[in-house]
Amino acid sequence: MNCAIFAIGNEILEGSITDTNSTYLAKHLTDLGFKIVEIKALPDNKEILVDNFTYALKNYDLTITTGGLGPTFDDLTAETVALAANREFIFYEDVYKSIENKLAVRGVKIKESHKHQAYLPKDAILFQNDKGTAVGFCVENSGSLIISLPGIPYEMKHMFENYVVPFLKNRFDLKPIYKKDLKFIGIPESDVDEAIINTEKSDDTEVIINTSKGMIIVRIRSYNYEKLMAFAEKLKDKLNKFYFGEDDDTLESVILKKLIAKNITISTAESCTGGLIAKKLTDIPGSSKSFLGSIVSYSNDAKNNILNVSKETLEKFGAVSEECCKEMLTGCKKIFNSDIVIATTGIAGPDGGTKDKPVGTVFVGINMKDKVFIKKYLFNGDREAIRERTANIAFRNLLELLSE
Amino acid sequence: MNCAIFAIGNEILEGSITDTNSTYLAKHLTDLGFKIVEIKALPDNKEILVDNFTYALKNYDLTITTGGLGPTFDDLTAETVALAANREFIFYEDVYKSIENKLAVRGVKIKESHKHQAYLPKDAILFQNDKGTAVGFCVENSGSLIISLPGIPYEMKHMFENYVVPFLKNRFDLKPIYKKDLKFIGIPESDVDEAIINTEKSDDTEVIINTSKGMIIVRIRSYNYEKLMAFAEKLKDKLNKFYFGEDDDTLESVILKKLIAKNITISTAESCTGGLIAKKLTDIPGSSKSFLGSIVSYSNDAKNNILNVSKETLEKFGAVSEECCKEMLTGCKKIFNSDIVIATTGIAGPDGGTKDKPVGTVFVGINMKDKVFIKKYLFNGDREAIRERTANIAFRNLLELLSE
Repeated sequence: MNCAIFAIGNEILEGSITDTNSTYLAKHLTDLGFKIVEIKALPDNKEILVDNFTYALKNYDLTITTGGLGPTFDDLTAETVALAANREFIFYEDVYKSIENKLAVRGVKIKESHKHQAYLPKDAILFQNDKGTAVGFCVENSGSLIISLPGIPYEMKHMFENYVVPFLKNRFDLKPIYKKDLKFIGIPESDVDEAIINTEKSDDTEVIINTSKGMIIVRIRSYNYEKLMAFAEKLKDKLNKFYFGEDDDTLESVILKKLIAKNITISTAESCTGGLIAKKLTDIPGSSKSFLGSIVSYSNDAKNNILNVSKETLEKFGAVSEECCKEMLTGCKKIFNSDIVIATTGIAGPDGGTKDKPVGTVFVGINMKDKVFIKKYLFNGDREAIRERTANIAFRNLLELLSE
Repeated sequence: MNCAIFAIGNEILEGSITDTNSTYLAKHLTDLGFKIVEIKALPDNKEILVDNFTYALKNYDLTITTGGLGPTFDDLTAETVALAANREFIFYEDVYKSIENKLAVRGVKIKESHKHQAYLPKDAILFQNDKGTAVGFCVENSGSLIISLPGIPYEMKHMFENYVVPFLKNRFDLKPIYKKDLKFIGIPESDVDEAIINTEKSDDTEVIINTSKGMIIVRIRSYNYEKLMAFAEKLKDKLNKFYFGEDDDTLESVILKKLIAKNITISTAESCTGGLIAKKLTDIPGSSKSFLGSIVSYSNDAKNNILNVSKETLEKFGAVSEECCKEMLTGCKKIFNSDIVIATTGIAGPDGGTKDKPVGTVFVGINMKDKVFIKKYLFNGDREAIRERTANIAFRNLLELLSE
C-alpha cells in the first residue's frame, strides 16, 4: 500500500515552521503497514495543489494532507481536492451548524468567512474535529483515497487517532512491518557499519544506520518478526559494550528506569543548562519516583545563597570553574539529600566568553555515593547546541557510572 | 531563482526523525532571494534518488540535498548525483587524506569503509567540513546546480553558512524578498482574517495567516520594502490591542526584553513544568540580566524543605492546589528576592489524576509587586502538551500584567 503525505502551507516552504505533522503521520502510517513513498511540502497555490492531488489520485493508494482547512482566504485544500477529484464543491449545512455551535461556546462572533469551512467536496466521508472547527474529509477516485486533516497538530492527531485509524484499518488489508531500533554510544559509526556488514541477515530484513547527538541508531525492519529479532540479538551481542537502549529509549529514560528500579533518587543544580536537565528528566512520565528537584542557580547570588557556594570560590575561580561545580554538588546534595546529584556550570554564549574561558567552556559534575566526578568540556556550536550537549554528556557520564 | 530541497534518508519517510534541516535551509535560502518550490523527503534508494536528481537538474536553478554522505552502505547521495549528472564517480586522494587525519585525531581506526566518503562526482566543487568527515560538493549541468550537504545538523549548518552562502551569493544574482511577521494573542483567527481583507495592500504584497499555540502569526512578504512596511503598520494599528511582537519574538523573549529594560528580576518555582519555564527563559541570550533562577520542587519534601510550603497545606489541600501555589510563590520570593515570581503546580499525567483533580489540572501563579494572581486551568492533551501550555499561559498572564 503506497502512501504520500503532503503538508500544505507557504510557511513550511519558507522555513518559518518545521513540519512535525508529517513525521507523526509517517510513523503511524508505517506502523499500520503503509509504505510512505513521498513526503512533500506544498504551497498555498491553487494550481500546484490541483496538480499534486491529481498526480496522487493516479499514483498512490492513499494520500494524507495536513493544513489549508482554516477559515481564511489562503486555505485552499478542500477546494483543490474537489477540483482534482472532479467533485462539486458544496456547502454542508450540518457542518456549518456544528461550527456555529462551537464558535458560540467560545464566544466568537460568527462571520461570513466562517462559512468557508463548511464548503467541502460533494459526497465526502467526514471526520469530526473534537478539538477545533475544521472537519477532516476523505474522497475516493477509482480506488485511490485523499484524506485531508487540519494543520494544527493536536487537532490533527486527535482526529487521526480516533477517526482516521479505525477507518483505514477497516478499508485496507494491511500487513504490518516489524521494527526494532538498537541504540549505541561511545563507538564510531564505521565500526557499527562493519559489524552490520559482517552479521548474517535475511534478504527481507532492511537495516539503516543513523547518528544523532553522539549516539548511533541501527534501525532494523522486516515483515518477518523472528528474522528481525534474530538479527537484532546477534548485533546486540557483538556490540554489547556500547549498547544502551532500544526503540523509544533515550539516555535519560534509560537512566530513570535504572534509578527507579534500584530506588535511587536524583537532583540537579543547574547554571548554564538553566533547567534543561530537569526538563528532560521530567519529560518522562513517572520521573517523580526518582527525580526530587533542581536548583537553577542562574546568578552568583543564587549560587551563594541557595547552594552555599562560597563567595571566595566565586571571586577567586569564578562561577565557571571546577571548584564552583564541586560546591554546587555539595550544596544541592544537602538540600535534596538525593543519592545522585548532577551539577552544570558553563558559558553557553553568545556573550560572556573570555580568552581563558571561551564560549562553550562547561564543567559537568556528578556526585554519586559521595564520590565526585567533574569533567571540563569545550563544546562547539551555538547556545542551544552547547546547552543540549552539556545535558547529554551529563546523562552519558552518569550512565557510565551506573553501569560500572 | 527556483530552488528545491531534498532530505535523504529512510528514517524521515518512516517518521523516526523530524527533518529540521529543510526548515533551516528553506528559511535561509528564502532570505537570500530563492523561491523554494519543493521540499521533499527521499528514501535511501538508488533508482528514486537518480530519478529525482535528474528531474531537478532539468527543472530547478538550484537543488540542495542533505544526508546520505556518511561512510556506510546506505549512503548513496554522491553516487546517485554522479549518475544523474552524467559524471564519473571517482576517488579524491586529497579528500581521503583529510578524512584520515580527522579520524586519527579522534583516535578512530581507519577502515576500508572510510574510503567511501572520498568517492565523489568528477570535477565537483568541494565544500570543506570543519565539524566532521563528510565533505559537501556541488555539480552543475547546463546551468542547474545540485549542492549536497551532510545530514548532521551542526555539520550542515556550519558548512552552509561558511562556504555555501558565499558561493551562492557569488554565483547567482539574487533579489531578496522582504519579510515581516506580526504576532497577536487573544483574538480569533477569523477577526485577523477580516482585518487583513479590509486593509489595503499592493498586488506585490503576499499575506498568510498561521495559528500556533494560541497565537496568530500574520506573515507579510514583498519585494518592495516600503509597501510591506506600510501594510504592516496599518494592520498593527487596527489590531493594536492584541499585538505583542514581530519576527523572531516569542512570548518569553518579549517578556525578557521588557524586564531587562525596566531592570526587573524574575524567578520561578516549578512543579509540573519541571524546569521548562526556566529552560525557555534561559534559551534566550542575556537572560541572566533578569532571570535569577528556579526551584524545581518535584517532591512534596522539596516543596516543604526548600520553598517552605507548610505540611498542613500539603496534607489538607494537596500539592496541586491554589494554597500550595500561593506558598510556592512566597517561598520562591523569599529565596531569590526577585521582583516577579512564577509558580506552577499541576498534574501533567499520564498518571496521578483523580476525579476531583483530573490529569491536566494546573495552577499557575504570579507574584508581582507583592500582588498575587493565581488561576486554575484544565488543559487537554498529553504530558508534553500540558506542560507546554502551562508554560505558555504563565507567560501570557505575565505579559498581560506587564502591559497594564
